[in-house]
Amino acid sequence: MSAHPDSVLVCEVGPRDGLQMAQGRMATDVKLRWIRQLADAGLREIEVGSFVSPRMIPQMADTGEVVRGALAIDGLTVCALACNLKGAIAAHEAGAHVVAIPVSVSDTHSHANVNKGTDAQVEMVRSIVDWVRAQSRPMRIDVAAATAFGCSMEGDVPRRRVAQVAAALAATGADRVALADTVGYAHPALVRETVREVQDAIGATLTKLHLHDTMGLGLANALAGLDEGIREFDACLAGLGGCPFAPGASGNIVTEDLVFMLESMGRPTGVDLPRLLEARSLLRQALPQEPMRSGVAAAGIPRTFRT
Amino acid sequence: MSAHPDSVLVCEVGPRDGLQMAQGRMATDVKLRWIRQLADAGLREIEVGSFVSPRMIPQMADTGEVVRGALAIDGLTVCALACNLKGAIAAHEAGAHVVAIPVSVSDTHSHANVNKGTDAQVEMVRSIVDWVRAQSRPMRIDVAAATAFGCSMEGDVPRRRVAQVAAALAATGADRVALADTVGYAHPALVRETVREVQDAIGATLTKLHLHDTMGLGLANALAGLDEGIREFDACLAGLGGCPFAPGASGNIVTEDLVFMLESMGRPTGVDLPRLLEARSLLRQALPQEPMRSGVAAAGIPRTFRT
Repeated sequence: MSAHPDSVLVCEVGPRDGLQMAQGRMATDVKLRWIRQLADAGLREIEVGSFVSPRMIPQMADTGEVVRGALAIDGLTVCALACNLKGAIAAHEAGAHVVAIPVSVSDTHSHANVNKGTDAQVEMVRSIVDWVRAQSRPMRIDVAAATAFGCSMEGDVPRRRVAQVAAALAATGADRVALADTVGYAHPALVRETVREVQDAIGATLTKLHLHDTMGLGLANALAGLDEGIREFDACLAGLGGCPFAPGASGNIVTEDLVFMLESMGRPTGVDLPRLLEARSLLRQALPQEPMRSGVAAAGIPRTFRT
Repeated sequence: MSAHPDSVLVCEVGPRDGLQMAQGRMATDVKLRWIRQLADAGLREIEVGSFVSPRMIPQMADTGEVVRGALAIDGLTVCALACNLKGAIAAHEAGAHVVAIPVSVSDTHSHANVNKGTDAQVEMVRSIVDWVRAQSRPMRIDVAAATAFGCSMEGDVPRRRVAQVAAALAATGADRVALADTVGYAHPALVRETVREVQDAIGATLTKLHLHDTMGLGLANALAGLDEGIREFDACLAGLGGCPFAPGASGNIVTEDLVFMLESMGRPTGVDLPRLLEARSLLRQALPQEPMRSGVAAAGIPRTFRT
């Protein structure tokens, strides 16, 4: 949207990845107020929910309604996650601009999560692409190569395998591929090497990193990705949510701190940091038990900060 | 000490910077047990205390005893902070291997802290160098250029001024100069630019960065410094301590997470991460009220980690 060559897109995933992991539950109207606040602060792309079984994740049962509500927000790209064709159809029916589909590079992780191996999941993505392309309304298809920096079950995930899976995902006709540090094992050298290898395989179809702050390395990993030309990052207000593989560990990288880092470095995000910090209040009220992180929120925006 | 060309020295400052900011007080024998645990985990350089007025910082009143106790630890480089000649003499008398002297690049910050301007402080360093060089026992003299990345009072601190002060400090004959992000305003682009400008001025006399995690950017800033050739970093177990300029904000970068990042990236630190994590227990017992941070400690060392 921005034509500035240095600009970076921060994709807020709090309403999906954050709430999915949170203990408390947020009502639909509160979700929509929160999403509007985030959009008003300048976040142009928000993952608002996921079309998964409400028995599995009750917190996401209202995703159709949330997508439809979020579509009323001017200029917002509304994303929703889906794990299969049924979910992608639901996302399309709700009117989502983007469907995001996770596919684990680790075969073991994939089997454990969706009862299917990685190759079968690539075929599933192909079926989604075929279905979506046959519809009259277009919908962008983003695939996230999960466990791209290691797996809590398999351990190391070879970079060559990551590049192979990314190439297979790109070959399905999906629009974009992201690399996700699902279990938080990434470190800056691995980010650099993996991003380079995947760029060699699929070029600019690799657009985004989805990073967690599990080991405290989230923003260092983002910096490494930035250095390699990545210009889109998922992040979560207050670092909401956690890690399903490590109880008590922190979750996604913190939107506030990421925006602070990028803007400080002269990379426009379009986000108004003071307004973004205001969107924490609603979260605090709605989920009073939930840990909320952010260096910038705790210390205050320094007087040297300007955008 | 290590001849490995990629190795990085992590200097533990918990017993000084951490405890100085902590609410609780740690007894001398507990400090020494803790310092021994840190050394046993492989930390080869530890700032064990500061020779400052015990009325100002009662927590540091036993620094002489702590230095003398720490000298019994084989292979450990024992550092102590001093703010003036009197403190440096006390450090020398106690037998410290290194005296670390902070000098604020921000004149306003310097006046507020020590009632003297930056130039007067440079002269003070010169008087310490002259005194130390006249003694029969050598003592390394490290100077930290404080507020090198911004000041809570002055705001921006011009890079050219940082380089000027660094050059003046190097010209005193001090052995090493570090850059300190005293108030936590640094960001990766600023770290890169400032380190380069200071390297242009004083070359390899710039050895170290002292970074805080105030805004959540601590490890990203360390990565930026590493990219510019910095091979020494101060850090604090559990990120102990806080920021005197922002109540509730986090303190120094976390030793555990820094070691995890460096070792993961193939940069040997000589530190045994599991043993380092064990040194947290003593801290938890001694200062039960104190917030303790660390991604690695919360999530556990990932199975992909190896040194």
